[in-house]
Amino acid sequence: MNELTMKVAQQAFAAFARGLATGDFQPFFAMLTDEFTFWYPYGKYRGKFTGQEGKARIVAKCHDHMQAGDRLTFSPPHHITSSDTTVMFEFECKGVIRQQPYQGRIAIALDVSGEKISGLREYFGDVD
Amino acid sequence: MNELTMKVAQQAFAAFARGLATGDFQPFFAMLTDEFTFWYPYGKYRGKFTGQEGKARIVAKCHDHMQAGDRLTFSPPHHITSSDTTVMFEFECKGVIRQQPYQGRIAIALDVSGEKISGLREYFGDVD
Repeated sequence: MNELTMKVAQQAFAAFARGLATGDFQPFFAMLTDEFTFWYPYGKYRGKFTGQEGKARIVAKCHDHMQAGDRLTFSPPHHITSSDTTVMFEFECKGVIRQQPYQGRIAIALDVSGEKISGLREYFGDVD
Repeated sequence: MNELTMKVAQQAFAAFARGLATGDFQPFFAMLTDEFTFWYPYGKYRGKFTGQEGKARIVAKCHDHMQAGDRLTFSPPHHITSSDTTVMFEFECKGVIRQQPYQGRIAIALDVSGEKISGLREYFGDVD
């Protein structure tokens, strides 16, 4: 395990969780590289997007959550796995999305480049 | 990284992939502990199940695939992360499920106990 990779990923995961809990994503955005790879399973942001488009999409998605007043609380991850450049967090999440109660199991992989995050892949462990 | 954990998980992942490619899950079943934790996102097998029920459910799900004639091909994993006891595989998958073409991004975590697999958690990276 690469200790810097783990430290940077943990910090970014906490910043992302804080964004979804409070609506303030600035500390998370500050950790993202300009060229960014974003994979998301569902809806408006479904797909794999790279480079400046990937960055624009993850920022836009966070703004959407902010504007909708979504509030989510992440459980402490029940499993964390890593390689030299990627950390995967498995956790549970609950709260309110578009004024509806939400609860689900999630896995998020963060790719680390130096002290920044260059990719996020999200996977759903609960699908209605 | 624990080398035995990685070796056992890689072997089980290959056996699971072979089961979905050929319908023969016996080598995969032989690697599962009697008490097994199975988490699945969707449909008939949705939920978290532990112990003998978890084992019964993953075996039943594999039998369902066999009987339906489902055939899936896994890509080589594009990311593999691990801890001392868990290995997470991210990959793409395509083929035929219930006589319909299927293609999707998947993440599967395998929990390793000694030389066996004691848990499988599946996550979807594409949701229609």
